[in-house]
Amino acid sequence: MTHSSIPSAQTVVLHCKAKGVKNIVISPGSRNAPLTFGFTEDSFFSCFSIVDERCAAFFALGIAQQLKEPVALVCTSGSALLNYYPAIAEAFFSDIPLVVISADRPTYKIDIGDGQTIRQDNVFQRHIGYSANLRQDVVHAEESIRRFGSALLTEDTIQASQEKVQVFNDNELNEALNIALKMQIPIHINVPFEESLYDYVENLTVEPDYVFPKTVKEEPISEMEDFTAIWNDSKRKMILVGVNPPNSVEKQFLNQLAKDPSVIVLTETTSNIHHNNFFPSIDGIIAPIEKSDRKDELFKALQPDLLLTFGGLIVSKKIKSVLRNYKPQHHWHVNEKKAYDTFFSLTYHFKTDINNFFARFLPATNYLESNYFKYWNSIKVKLESKREEYIGQIRFSDMLAFYHVANGLPDGCQLQLANSSTVRYMQLFAQKPSVSVFCNRGTSGIDGSTSTAVGAAVYSEPPTVLLTGDLSFFYDSNALWNRYIRNDFRIILINNGGGGIFRILPGNNERDNFERFFETTHGLDAQNLCKMYGFEYQAVSNSEVLKNSLADFFEESSAPRVLEVKTPRILNDKILLGYFDFISSEYINH
Amino acid sequence: MTHSSIPSAQTVVLHCKAKGVKNIVISPGSRNAPLTFGFTEDSFFSCFSIVDERCAAFFALGIAQQLKEPVALVCTSGSALLNYYPAIAEAFFSDIPLVVISADRPTYKIDIGDGQTIRQDNVFQRHIGYSANLRQDVVHAEESIRRFGSALLTEDTIQASQEKVQVFNDNELNEALNIALKMQIPIHINVPFEESLYDYVENLTVEPDYVFPKTVKEEPISEMEDFTAIWNDSKRKMILVGVNPPNSVEKQFLNQLAKDPSVIVLTETTSNIHHNNFFPSIDGIIAPIEKSDRKDELFKALQPDLLLTFGGLIVSKKIKSVLRNYKPQHHWHVNEKKAYDTFFSLTYHFKTDINNFFARFLPATNYLESNYFKYWNSIKVKLESKREEYIGQIRFSDMLAFYHVANGLPDGCQLQLANSSTVRYMQLFAQKPSVSVFCNRGTSGIDGSTSTAVGAAVYSEPPTVLLTGDLSFFYDSNALWNRYIRNDFRIILINNGGGGIFRILPGNNERDNFERFFETTHGLDAQNLCKMYGFEYQAVSNSEVLKNSLADFFEESSAPRVLEVKTPRILNDKILLGYFDFISSEYINH
Repeated sequence: MTHSSIPSAQTVVLHCKAKGVKNIVISPGSRNAPLTFGFTEDSFFSCFSIVDERCAAFFALGIAQQLKEPVALVCTSGSALLNYYPAIAEAFFSDIPLVVISADRPTYKIDIGDGQTIRQDNVFQRHIGYSANLRQDVVHAEESIRRFGSALLTEDTIQASQEKVQVFNDNELNEALNIALKMQIPIHINVPFEESLYDYVENLTVEPDYVFPKTVKEEPISEMEDFTAIWNDSKRKMILVGVNPPNSVEKQFLNQLAKDPSVIVLTETTSNIHHNNFFPSIDGIIAPIEKSDRKDELFKALQPDLLLTFGGLIVSKKIKSVLRNYKPQHHWHVNEKKAYDTFFSLTYHFKTDINNFFARFLPATNYLESNYFKYWNSIKVKLESKREEYIGQIRFSDMLAFYHVANGLPDGCQLQLANSSTVRYMQLFAQKPSVSVFCNRGTSGIDGSTSTAVGAAVYSEPPTVLLTGDLSFFYDSNALWNRYIRNDFRIILINNGGGGIFRILPGNNERDNFERFFETTHGLDAQNLCKMYGFEYQAVSNSEVLKNSLADFFEESSAPRVLEVKTPRILNDKILLGYFDFISSEYINH
Repeated sequence: MTHSSIPSAQTVVLHCKAKGVKNIVISPGSRNAPLTFGFTEDSFFSCFSIVDERCAAFFALGIAQQLKEPVALVCTSGSALLNYYPAIAEAFFSDIPLVVISADRPTYKIDIGDGQTIRQDNVFQRHIGYSANLRQDVVHAEESIRRFGSALLTEDTIQASQEKVQVFNDNELNEALNIALKMQIPIHINVPFEESLYDYVENLTVEPDYVFPKTVKEEPISEMEDFTAIWNDSKRKMILVGVNPPNSVEKQFLNQLAKDPSVIVLTETTSNIHHNNFFPSIDGIIAPIEKSDRKDELFKALQPDLLLTFGGLIVSKKIKSVLRNYKPQHHWHVNEKKAYDTFFSLTYHFKTDINNFFARFLPATNYLESNYFKYWNSIKVKLESKREEYIGQIRFSDMLAFYHVANGLPDGCQLQLANSSTVRYMQLFAQKPSVSVFCNRGTSGIDGSTSTAVGAAVYSEPPTVLLTGDLSFFYDSNALWNRYIRNDFRIILINNGGGGIFRILPGNNERDNFERFFETTHGLDAQNLCKMYGFEYQAVSNSEVLKNSLADFFEESSAPRVLEVKTPRILNDKILLGYFDFISSEYINH
């Protein structure tokens, strides 16, 4: 096998291999040639080539999201690296281990006016698990020698220096990669390379020193009885689940919770948890209360004594607002790593995974007589019937399109949601339990959803469907510039001609500057992009055609497909706001 | 006039107005609504709306590059801000004053799991002139009050706190904007806003306290006589000019230097300096020496006693390598702000602008008898004739396409160059003196050249031509998603089907992984993008048609235009390398 002649390039590649980093997403460049050679010559690695680094990083994030293992990014020196930042921040807040590897000029060439040179070391400082700033190899540092004089650099001192560099780099790499593995967090490895960059050797010249992460034994939860007592005494227990991978919580625990009359389980579209007794449409329950004369009374009835949360970030602004204003007495969060005090009421962080927690905790608990579930479940049932009634009477619009899509998805598919209105509309409806749902909720950006979906599809067993809005889709249009898109990849694009979500915001949409600076209207559709990138394309603009199209949209095809759903820009907000009015009448006359 | 009700939003807008920041590039969002209202309601400001923040930032950079004044960027909270980073780094190294204004959540909502929330304060720390982290207004901090209890927050304490916040924010804003103005450097202002974000007032509620930058009197250069003596004693004086705006150096000084037999002036395509006696094709002079048996002798003949540099970064790798290996005894750099030690030989930094320097320095200098100019000028004349000979005999290729384009540009146009092979090919030919040339050489990235060109065109008197390669063009395809593109805007796209520049690199282009991971071949053309964004489109693939097309490509039109020049992927590198061989024969037999 051929290797780069540069020892530190060999070292980085070997460390990745030793730690099981198999997928490598490479963007083209010259400075990173030693890494590109190293990774692409070894068949242990699956390498992907993507030009736009912003897309490359979200693509890698999609792979890592699905495999739940570190995926590496490799880029050249200069601003290339900065294009990774949106995806790195998303990974940072979503606990996804991206291994960012940037080639760099040798340190003495930084800030002296060399080309494609920025300050790469520690550049992601605010959103990174670790920044390993490797040292350049001395034996290759001809320019270094030229610059600093060769007096100090005899063959012996070079040898000694090289060994020191190797030890330093091994330490940094062990630290960085172990943090990525243990903490499920992005890390950054910056590797300075001296020229020449294109030389090979047939045999490795380094023997890295690997340190593997220790498995830390979980500490037992002290005073478990106290927590059990609180649980058993709480008449109103609310369980709220954020972003959570499919099939990650054991059914037996969910069934047990579903039967407890003192428990309500609120699930979000992204929580991938389903039970007839759970509450998947949080906003539908809260919105009517907000409009009710009995608002305070009803929110107090909803206010939990004990709030138990697990999973990632919460989409629903309404539940955040309710719980901040009607704080639970106790708020426990269960997660191995971190607990956000989202409602300013966190009282305990169980540092364990949710199945461990339930396994140790639930056996000591009892069902408690309570009206909590029963009351809110009756509200839910009414809401669901009102929703169907409303759906039956509205014109074609975003809301109706999302409704049809939610119902028309193939069983067992992977659904990737874009942010902003897409994920919020989908929150209005219960999802098919067999559908796995993902969304970049770490930063909730509109910037990389398509690339993430393309990456998530790479190794997915079921086919992947991306559901997206127009701003998000056109923002990440370079996501389609990707030779790894599967033929069964599907995009459903709800195009309302602009940032329709802004129309829903408190009443400024009649002002002159609204359409241009908030809604940012445009006349774009996806047809030409589809031609450019070899997607099959179909556009629909009414319910009948949409339903018919969905029926065969997911069939086998020889190219990936886009279904563009064109909805009326002006009507959408009125229909959505009308929905909340419509379901509210039930409460107001309660 | 209507204003946001939020005092800190009013304050930011007023500070920008007071400091003459007139152009505001806004990306849509909700959190930044108070700023969007403030800027768009006041006709003092020219506001632009661009969705993709990466493009928005390069677009703003293009405007600022041309106007030489600060241009503001406004975005919402979350990852939006991170998409600015590539342009911010470019601005940082190219001395362009971008005023980055990000809306943020209030500080107590950072790192508690709120949506669209990252760690925005100091996020550009490695590449920013100043980070102003403003404080949120207390009177609007209802949630703050709710959270921290109202005991401390009576009406009086709120009033007092609000005044403190105002003083703090005024100080930060003065500091930040004055640095942008004085230092011509990007700065970042982060503004946390509490909800509600959409309330108006008719009258301002703040009276900001402005501090304006002081004009610093330039210190006289001490021991000027010593420098004059060095100049007058140096038989070989080289003047090397990097990125430099058109018409910025007074003609009289250039004429004086052009006549000195001991002076050679090396100009780059981006230096915008022209004289028959200057040397615009640096690489053409150096490449043959590199191949010569008399290499050392010839480089010693080129090695200057005194090197004087001004302008920004140098494109030519060859001149950098020569000057690092054959160091000048003295290297002076002239710039008001900074001096890079690009050749590891810097001996003095004249902190003044180049006209001031020449005005004070040149009168005391004498012409010195020397063979330096004469010798190298004779080489240059031979090179130019050999180049024409070579051009006359090659097949259609990148080199011939760039040659025709360089000759076919309309007089007086503004030429924006993409990075990588585009700027390097253009370095091979002398440019028309009437053409103004710009290129993002601060980071030399391929990421934002199209957006920069679109922005640079906005206020340009002559029409703007972007000359770009395919990877750079498709990378920044969202640049065309812009409603401010002028009808006289022209793009010439040299499409060789991949990163052709990599074919020129030292001999790895026969390996299996080459095409995918270095050259990154693709089959894309610009036709569908042109349809999508309303550009007129024409494709050419031979010299005759190219020359004919160029003849009317620049005529008035009712839409902007793309001319796509398709060149043979495999042949290009051979023709370029052949060029250096061809011109070298002259030296080798010298």
